[in-house]
Amino acid sequence: MNYQIPEIDLKALFIGHKGENADLFKELLLKMVDEHIGWRQNYQPQDLPVITPFDKDSSSFKNTANHMRSVFDELSSKLRTESMPWHTAGRFWGHMNSETLMPSILAYTSAMLWNGNNVAYESSPGTSQMEEEAGHQLCKMMSYKAGESWGHICADGSIANLEGIWYARNLKSLPLAIKEVAPEHVEGKSEWELLNMSTDEILDLMDKIPEQMDEVKAKSARSGRYLNKLGKWLIPQTKHYSWLKSADIIGVGLDAVEAIDVDSSYHMDIEKLETRIRELAAEQIPVLGVVGVVGSTEEGQIDHIDKMVALREKLQAEGIYFYIHVDAAYGGYARAIFLDENDEFIPYNKIDEVFERNHVFTDKKLQDEWLTEDVYNAFDAMSKVESITIDPHKMGYIPYAAGAIVIRDIRMRDAISYFATYVFEKGADIPALLGAYILEGSKAGATAAAVWTAHKVLPLNVTGYGKLMGASLEGAYRFYNFLKDLKFNVNGKVIICHPLTKPDFNMVDYTFNEEGNTDLERMNKLNHEFFNYSSYVKSDIYSNEFFTSHTDFAIPDYGHSPLEYVKGIGFSEEEWNRVEKVTILRACALSPYAHDPEVFEDYAAKIKNAIQENLEKAVMEI
Amino acid sequence: MNYQIPEIDLKALFIGHKGENADLFKELLLKMVDEHIGWRQNYQPQDLPVITPFDKDSSSFKNTANHMRSVFDELSSKLRTESMPWHTAGRFWGHMNSETLMPSILAYTSAMLWNGNNVAYESSPGTSQMEEEAGHQLCKMMSYKAGESWGHICADGSIANLEGIWYARNLKSLPLAIKEVAPEHVEGKSEWELLNMSTDEILDLMDKIPEQMDEVKAKSARSGRYLNKLGKWLIPQTKHYSWLKSADIIGVGLDAVEAIDVDSSYHMDIEKLETRIRELAAEQIPVLGVVGVVGSTEEGQIDHIDKMVALREKLQAEGIYFYIHVDAAYGGYARAIFLDENDEFIPYNKIDEVFERNHVFTDKKLQDEWLTEDVYNAFDAMSKVESITIDPHKMGYIPYAAGAIVIRDIRMRDAISYFATYVFEKGADIPALLGAYILEGSKAGATAAAVWTAHKVLPLNVTGYGKLMGASLEGAYRFYNFLKDLKFNVNGKVIICHPLTKPDFNMVDYTFNEEGNTDLERMNKLNHEFFNYSSYVKSDIYSNEFFTSHTDFAIPDYGHSPLEYVKGIGFSEEEWNRVEKVTILRACALSPYAHDPEVFEDYAAKIKNAIQENLEKAVMEI
Repeated sequence: MNYQIPEIDLKALFIGHKGENADLFKELLLKMVDEHIGWRQNYQPQDLPVITPFDKDSSSFKNTANHMRSVFDELSSKLRTESMPWHTAGRFWGHMNSETLMPSILAYTSAMLWNGNNVAYESSPGTSQMEEEAGHQLCKMMSYKAGESWGHICADGSIANLEGIWYARNLKSLPLAIKEVAPEHVEGKSEWELLNMSTDEILDLMDKIPEQMDEVKAKSARSGRYLNKLGKWLIPQTKHYSWLKSADIIGVGLDAVEAIDVDSSYHMDIEKLETRIRELAAEQIPVLGVVGVVGSTEEGQIDHIDKMVALREKLQAEGIYFYIHVDAAYGGYARAIFLDENDEFIPYNKIDEVFERNHVFTDKKLQDEWLTEDVYNAFDAMSKVESITIDPHKMGYIPYAAGAIVIRDIRMRDAISYFATYVFEKGADIPALLGAYILEGSKAGATAAAVWTAHKVLPLNVTGYGKLMGASLEGAYRFYNFLKDLKFNVNGKVIICHPLTKPDFNMVDYTFNEEGNTDLERMNKLNHEFFNYSSYVKSDIYSNEFFTSHTDFAIPDYGHSPLEYVKGIGFSEEEWNRVEKVTILRACALSPYAHDPEVFEDYAAKIKNAIQENLEKAVMEI
Repeated sequence: MNYQIPEIDLKALFIGHKGENADLFKELLLKMVDEHIGWRQNYQPQDLPVITPFDKDSSSFKNTANHMRSVFDELSSKLRTESMPWHTAGRFWGHMNSETLMPSILAYTSAMLWNGNNVAYESSPGTSQMEEEAGHQLCKMMSYKAGESWGHICADGSIANLEGIWYARNLKSLPLAIKEVAPEHVEGKSEWELLNMSTDEILDLMDKIPEQMDEVKAKSARSGRYLNKLGKWLIPQTKHYSWLKSADIIGVGLDAVEAIDVDSSYHMDIEKLETRIRELAAEQIPVLGVVGVVGSTEEGQIDHIDKMVALREKLQAEGIYFYIHVDAAYGGYARAIFLDENDEFIPYNKIDEVFERNHVFTDKKLQDEWLTEDVYNAFDAMSKVESITIDPHKMGYIPYAAGAIVIRDIRMRDAISYFATYVFEKGADIPALLGAYILEGSKAGATAAAVWTAHKVLPLNVTGYGKLMGASLEGAYRFYNFLKDLKFNVNGKVIICHPLTKPDFNMVDYTFNEEGNTDLERMNKLNHEFFNYSSYVKSDIYSNEFFTSHTDFAIPDYGHSPLEYVKGIGFSEEEWNRVEKVTILRACALSPYAHDPEVFEDYAAKIKNAIQENLEKAVMEI
């Protein structure tokens, strides 16, 4: 169904940090439960209940029900005692979590009552269709071509990343397998040339030999062949551990992983990438693929995907080709902010106009602070890469666990699938056994319902998710500006807050340092203790008034990219080399409320006091 | 908290096929929602609502809320139109799905409101503890030793199986890495000996070189080394496609996978396994591991794990060792039926007594029909294998998606982990970053809550889950016996039902054949059409009165193991060789109500009529 979608009011889409929309939540919850119960009752209404009023009146029934009630008392107590208050409008500035969309919580709950398993169409016709639709919607959000691209929901970003490297590995090996099975199609090509064929060339070639496809696949990397020939997997130096796990699991191995330096603002250095690829080429070592990150989990930075794509085009002319996977687990949904009401990527010079029309930012100054051509160009170029990880459970504001992957060319699916592509439902173009085309097997239909419903309520463009992204970004910039001039007086010492770098996205990193302190270890200790008192570690969660998270930037992972920052706040290069790491406080700004200037101002005063208190406790420990 | 657990009445634990317990479900649902809302309101009660009464009265709010209501009308319609009626007490005899436990649906929904992410303790203290507890409970269900074993929840059985082969691969390669890094510890050992060290020996050896652990790990299979040296991965001939995917993904490759024949009752032939391992040993090809299946997805059969373990002991004395992974995705929870009130494995001669005391079967005859020493011994021996896949979302009656894996020796974790084991919370013995010890990253705390709550309500022994297993098994045997003498008169033809084999578990396979028909293709067509009319394919789901599923046993996967059955129902060996496959109807008997003799008899009459109708339609098409 196509709806006339009204101007979206984000306030109607969350339970509310004080449960303001509990009435609406319960209304829809009970509606969905009642409609489910009615469905049960009316399937073959001639069938009678098997649990009778007498059963329900028996002591064994009552005892069991009371036992269950006791367990729920305990569950409720545990959840209320040991959960994080992400829902707060302005006190939680830590881990990547917040309020999730009321419609997805409700959709998940509703669909769970039917318990569809999207592994097979047979067991979940309704939610399988929703997953297929949601996959195409995510493709459209990446400006992948309709009809040529495909996507699906998976457990999380690590699984999506693993599936990405699985695609890359099997695809890269196909030309070597073709050489064994159908050598006439790659006649005259050297091994180097075979290992540098583009994805398009490989897929076009596979199209020419449909009868031999199974045999070619059987001799591809899936057989165990060629794993050591496929070359290097290049990732940014700020390497997320999921990429190390992936390379381990997929068998190309950690020895095939190389980290490319990031610059002082934590973006992969594309010049260094080029240099390294040329060095490898000189040794006839191919590049299996390059990972660009859209929203790094520690800094929220967005790699220059446009420059990566341009580099590939340049090198392709020289006979060097590499697969590009974009890890946009975190930042993927943010592409919605760049799509206009018709889902077209907005020309740069029209952005102000479109944002204004859709009330994406309440404060144009903050919009201008955030939006750079670099960020814009990076998002634009995502449509040109082979595969992209996007987590609905991050910027999709959908409850855990919902990851996703999209592929630019649906034919890539053959490289990893376990059945011929004709195993599809007639007309529907939906696999009868989705499990044969993806990494996982059984999977909740409820997740698909949660994602599908969220996409229906909030279109994946500037009118829907784009607005939510704007709210989150604006909140992040309010927090960033709040931190910039922040000073505290703690037991006679002045403690100054130093934000790390202007964020590309909604992640704000920062540190506290005592004025004049030149001992980096001491500063690290201060920030670590501050984190302890601003988290579950040393606070009573429910009475703590300010939450944050932390991370370490250490030389083994970051090289010297933090040096500029560390020097800027008063430490010497020697001190950096001595201590070898800097402890960073980290705030993912997801609150859908904190962009509002009045709300933010209210909380700014409160959290300033709370930070003061937590700093006082932290200082006692260093 | 430890409860006085009353005698469990299963009727109090499900919503009921006619929504009989809708009152109890809604009572607890609203309790949990209200307690969550109260928690939001009372976290820093001085903070005011950010969504005001005026906001809620605005037209943008109302329009957005109405838009959301419209989307839920569509969602509800889609779910009610295109979902399967698994909930029915006696009409659904197909795919592995049914009513799930009311407490887990409720726990999932409740915990989802807090949206914990169990990837990191920091973001989910409560549900991380629940996951750790649930893991230990699953270990206990396998009689793995407390304190020495470990387990966790994962997305599904395919992921658990992949993690199992990841453990096996990395462990098997460690001795080769030790030879590079600390050769003095494996002095004098040949490569063959290194590749045949037992898991215990490897782990003990690793314990001796803690300082070199990281270096050894870096040279293990995770580096990309040795993948072609580790030997064969042996699986039963009825190979589930998840094992082919796993070998592909993990890089040992499909060429390393060998299928061991099953016998005519679809169990791995342990004599053939021995023969094959000896043949390989004669060529100095090691065995990476052997997969035993507890509950095959197509036949519900249970491999002779005891004989597999005994074979390993015998061969170990000859210097041949292999890892054993048990794929009990389906049958894992059934081990609860063999554990007494104190979680001890029940001696065989005490089973009748314990079952009677706990009312596990209502009909002792059916219990005797099912329970064989073979099945008992197979379950008993599970405690001796390295790792086991167990899916809570199958026989745990927990909604999708909830898989799990347990490992006998917690030290195995080091072979795949990405951080030193000291990255644990003090005292809690729970990883600070679970994602560094498992295949996935982000994962729903709600899943852990659902599993934990189910385990709290239903202990994992004969008093809890064991009773539920008994109900399911008894229902399966009622259905099996119902099919055994079933004949239909369709347009003057007699159609006879032929159950496949006496099931080890709650899966009943069967076919229909026209009396006197000797054309196997014709029979296959009949059964396929019968499936079409008994599923979403050619029936209107909601008005169809009998559901089943189907599968094909074809020579490429099954060899000639179906021949005995095929001959038994009147086809010649030539006919089998000509057609090369038999289409099988397949019923997973999960209904928690169909064990009741009165309920079953009521439905037997009804589904007999429904089968008659669907056969009439099917016959028209052949």
